[in-house]
Parts: sequence; C-alpha cells; structure tokens
Amino acid sequence: MFVKCSGDPLFLEPFWMQHAARSAVVVAGWHRMSYTFSDHSYISKELEDHIRRVHAVARNAVTKGKHIIFGGGSTQLLAAAVYALSINLSMPAEVVAASPAYPVYKTQTDFFQNTHFEYDGDALLLKNSSDTTANVIEFVTSPNNPDGNLREAVVSQGASVKAIYDHAYYWPHFTAIPAPTNQDVMIFTISKLTGHAGSRLGWAFVKDEDVYQKMQSYIEQAELGIAREAQLRALKLMKAILHADGREIFEYAYKKMSDRWRKLSDIVSLSKRFSIQEIPPLFCNFFEKVRGPSPAYAWLKCERKEDTNCTAVLRAANIIGRAGSLFNVEERYVRLSLLKSDDHFNLLLLRLDKLVAQDDDRKHHMNIL
Amino acid sequence: MFVKCSGDPLFLEPFWMQHAARSAVVVAGWHRMSYTFSDHSYISKELEDHIRRVHAVARNAVTKGKHIIFGGGSTQLLAAAVYALSINLSMPAEVVAASPAYPVYKTQTDFFQNTHFEYDGDALLLKNSSDTTANVIEFVTSPNNPDGNLREAVVSQGASVKAIYDHAYYWPHFTAIPAPTNQDVMIFTISKLTGHAGSRLGWAFVKDEDVYQKMQSYIEQAELGIAREAQLRALKLMKAILHADGREIFEYAYKKMSDRWRKLSDIVSLSKRFSIQEIPPLFCNFFEKVRGPSPAYAWLKCERKEDTNCTAVLRAANIIGRAGSLFNVEERYVRLSLLKSDDHFNLLLLRLDKLVAQDDDRKHHMNIL
Repeated sequence: MFVKCSGDPLFLEPFWMQHAARSAVVVAGWHRMSYTFSDHSYISKELEDHIRRVHAVARNAVTKGKHIIFGGGSTQLLAAAVYALSINLSMPAEVVAASPAYPVYKTQTDFFQNTHFEYDGDALLLKNSSDTTANVIEFVTSPNNPDGNLREAVVSQGASVKAIYDHAYYWPHFTAIPAPTNQDVMIFTISKLTGHAGSRLGWAFVKDEDVYQKMQSYIEQAELGIAREAQLRALKLMKAILHADGREIFEYAYKKMSDRWRKLSDIVSLSKRFSIQEIPPLFCNFFEKVRGPSPAYAWLKCERKEDTNCTAVLRAANIIGRAGSLFNVEERYVRLSLLKSDDHFNLLLLRLDKLVAQDDDRKHHMNIL
Repeated sequence: MFVKCSGDPLFLEPFWMQHAARSAVVVAGWHRMSYTFSDHSYISKELEDHIRRVHAVARNAVTKGKHIIFGGGSTQLLAAAVYALSINLSMPAEVVAASPAYPVYKTQTDFFQNTHFEYDGDALLLKNSSDTTANVIEFVTSPNNPDGNLREAVVSQGASVKAIYDHAYYWPHFTAIPAPTNQDVMIFTISKLTGHAGSRLGWAFVKDEDVYQKMQSYIEQAELGIAREAQLRALKLMKAILHADGREIFEYAYKKMSDRWRKLSDIVSLSKRFSIQEIPPLFCNFFEKVRGPSPAYAWLKCERKEDTNCTAVLRAANIIGRAGSLFNVEERYVRLSLLKSDDHFNLLLLRLDKLVAQDDDRKHHMNIL
C-alpha cells in the first residue's frame, strides 16, 4: 500500500472532534435560499468580521483598511487576482513565481488562456532583467509551498510589476510570524487554517478599490458568489476558534506540526542519502518568542549522485511524493506532506525509517518510533 | 418602495418551512474536511444517485448513459461547457443564442476573453447562413428565460455546430414537459428545482467522454470542485423531495406558479397598454395530461406606440423589471419575476393593478386581488 502525500490537511480532524459541540452547525431547509444576503452582497458580513478577528488573534496580517473577497478556495482567488491585475493592460502580463513554486500558478494560468496574461516561468530569471517596461505579475508564496521558506517578491517592484501574496500557510501552525503581513493583495484559505479543504472557501484582502472591484466581478461572473452553506459553516468554525482567547487552535496546530517535523528530522538526520530543508528558529509575533520549525511539507533531497529521480527512489519504498519537476526544479527533490492524518504520518515515518535503515552510510540507527 | 424583479426563487420557501424536520441538515465540525470523497472524486456519489432519481420522478430528462459534473451553480457550468467545446478548435468558436436570450451567455463569454471563443450575438442571424465551416456554439434555453417558450437549436446542426441546452427551468414547476430531454450537453441547477439559489450548485449531464473530461478539468482548475457543505445539504433536500412518491414538490410548485400566472394574466388582460406572452396548453409527461402555463417570468410588452421604454413606464409605477435590451431585444419589453416570495408577488400585483387602472382604454376594471 502506498503512502500518498497530497496536501489534504486532516491533521486538525482530532481538534474538531475534541470541539464537537461547539463546531457542529444546523442548517434549516428554508435558510439562506436567496442569491444574496440582506445587504445585497454575496458575502456574510458576520463571517467577514469573524475572519478579521481571527487574524487579529494570530497577529499575522494587517486587515484594517482592506477590502475582503470570498472565493472558491484560494484557488479561484489566484485566478481572479491575475485577471484583475492584467485585464486593463495593453500588453499581456508575464505571470511568474520563484522556483521551487506551487504548480497551480502555472497550470491555472496556462489553462484559462486569456489574452491578457501568460505564464512565463521563474521569477528569479526576471530579477535582474533590464527590461523595465514589461508587465509582470509575481506570485509570492510565503511561507513557500513546498519548502516553507518565508519569501518576499524577487522582481524589483515598479509601476508595471504587481505581486500577489499567497499566504495560505502564513499561520502559526506552519511558520513563525515575524510580523503581520501588509501587502496590497493577500490570499488566505480556510483549508490551511481550520483544515476544511472540502469547504472550498478562501478570502483575499485587497487594498486597491479598483482591483477589489475587478476581483469581485470575476467571482460574480464565474458563479455569483460561493455557497452560503460553506459560509455558514465557516462562521461556526471561526466562532469556535475565537472561543475564550482564541489561541488554542494555534497552539494545538503548532505543537502537532513541530512534533511531526522533529520526528521526521530525527530519521532523516541519520541518513547521508537524504536531506530536508533547514528552517532557522525565528521570533514569532504570535508566540512572542523564538520558535522552531513546523512546516506543512518536507522538501526532501536525494543526495546520492546516482539518485537523479528521487520520486522513483521513494516510490520503490511505497511513498508517493510530489516530484520536484512539478515545482520547476530538478527531480532530485520531492515534496512530502506532513499535513495528513496521524495514521498517514505514522505510516510515512515507518516507511522512511525502513528506507533510511537500508542506507549503509548511516552512522547508527535507533528505533525512534 | 420599489418591487425589484430578480430571479430569486423564494416562492418555495413555504414548502421547505412545511417540511422543516425532513430538510434540516447537521454538519459536524470534523465532517468532510478532505478535498475529495473516498472515491477520490469531488462529487458525492450519493448525491449524484439522488439527482438522477429526482429526474426519473419528474420524467424530464434521459440521464442514463450520461456523465454528471457539479459546478458553482449552472453559471459556472455554462462557462465550463463553452470552454470544453472550443478549446481544441483551430478557429475561435462563435457563441450565439436566439433572442430574447438570457444575458449571462454574452456577459460571461465577453468577460473571460479566452482566445478560443467569442460572443457573436443572435443565433437567428446564423440560422440561414451559407457559411457551414464556422465553429458555432449555440446556447439553447428551454424553456426560455425570459419568455418561457420551449426551444430547439436554431442553427442547423453539423460537425462544427454544438449546442448547450440550458434546462434550468425544465421542471414541471415552470413548463409542461412534452418529453424527457435527451441532449449531448444539458445543464440544470438546484436554484430553480428546490429554490436554493444561495447553494450555488448546478449539474451538467454530458454524453461525450472527452467533453465531460474537459468540463471536469475546468471545475478542477477553477476551484477543485464545489463545497462539500452545499453537496451535503443538496443531498438532504433531494431525500426530502423523494420522500413518498416524490411528486409533492412538483405539484406544489406548479400550483403556485400557475396560480400566480393566472392572477397576473387576469390583470394584464384588462389592459390594452400592456400584453404578456402567450403560452399554449400542452401535454405534460409528468402530469400525464394537458396543462396550462406556469412560467418563471412574465415577458411584458408596452403596446402603445409612444411607450418605447417599457422599463421606464414600469419604474414610474415603482416596479423594477429587467429591460428588454439586456435580452437583446427592443426596450418595449420587460421581464417581471414570478419567482419571488408571496409578499413580493402580491406587491407586484397591487402595483400592476394600479397601473392598469390608470389605463383609460381598459374595458372595465375589477378588483381581483
């Protein structure tokens, strides 16, 4: 049986089981049948207020003075943002992201084949470009998927350069929060905050009125806003999070993710064949102290010269990771998910432990499971 | 106070209040957190089965042998279908619909500005075209929004001509069902079946495997499927509909809509200034007898020569309809909604009655309210 490493955030399932009474929602048959809320918008104002309050507790974003838009996961908002930032340009925008980059930026931009934008690859190649007239839209993923690094835009900012900050993982669960983020376009998703990937609910904070209006139009043209049932449930989850001082979910998630990281690191550290990314301890605005790493993914590298296809090496050990090539880097890298259920993670550890034990180079091996 | 005539289907709210116990749904906090169902799809197989059973009761569609896709309302599926039918063409497809036509076909096609399709206006202009090589995608709305007429494609079918059947209103609520529809691409929505517009849940039945795969990809790229909460609630509603012999909702909806139509007709029939569309009695496959009209909208015409702007005439009487120009016909026409709440409909009748009473041409006026 294979251990598949998708980004399914089931690690929080036990948290919601522990808070069953507070997080269940009842929807009456006649409730919220209308296209719009009573203020004629597609957005629950109450949910908006609660989302802003959760950010205030996490101390991870400056939301004041910014418009909010809901979309079908962060996925739909990524496309909406590219559309809004490019639709009035006379020349098509080049959409870029620094490698290793989350694959959806490229697949989505290619898929929708709009006349106003095209995917242009690695932002690092544009970094020192002398062409300052080209229209550029840079996706900045911080912390980055796959490697968990905190990032800033790499293309020099100017009138024709725009950035979309994908902050799906910018929560104390997955990273130290050095300071609240305060960008013009910032995208978040309930999937990586509460673990409810199936709800398909993301939100964007947007500073500029015109960009906001265009993103709104995109969601309206695409599907007249998102499901009221998802918004209703999200509100219940936000209320559950905000119960007492609102810190519990962050403490729970950080503990679980850092614990997983430590266990994985312990195994990989015994090996010369494999390595994983290094994430330095950093001061965290939420915990108000220096804290260690707790990334969503391990970015595994096969160190042996002959192991050019790391995905195949892991597959032989019944581990299915995401190939480096998907992230626009060499096949020597593979992304492993630390987000899934406890059963999944424990199986992943067992398989990795076995793989590392076959490694004759290792110093000595302890059964740490 | 204005009476606004949007397509919000609140007329079924009392039905769901009467069936409160059967239609309420409880969602536990840890339920359906994953991106996918256990069969790795974005679609609840159980909901799919129940939707097929509801069609079997309504006797309005041949669903056997057809793939199903869920989207964010029928709205998203319209765009997905245009995409799927055009993406492999060497020349852009001309997207058309016979006037009067639902405005979204044009606004959506224009908005997404894909290189593979463009909106080309009225299908009737292409009907007798001698150019048989052009790629054409025709939206066929049956019954039609705004006028409730049952329709067939008007552009002669051929290898380069495809049709998308928008069957949002093809339920016994709104029309006689002469026979089950059996088209290659057929789109439905929960909005006009149960009245839950806010759930943003539509479905398409697609015959061709390749078109199905491309529409699937569209929904996946756009937002990785639609909210599990909306699917869960839709399942509960379908189960409530299918209770006993499943006929109650259709009988309830037909009674209410035909009753509304009769009341409106009675008022308009007193006037020479206004007229509404004629819908002939027709044999219905669901009721197994000839039945009268029960359309979702009244397609009102201002008959006086000087009333070239019918929207303005109604607005002066505090009624806000949708202008004929939105449906690609002259301003002499206005769409009025018969779908909204009882309060809304009664207010609409009062206002119309008052307007008609001002009409000196009328034969005689009775207070029929």
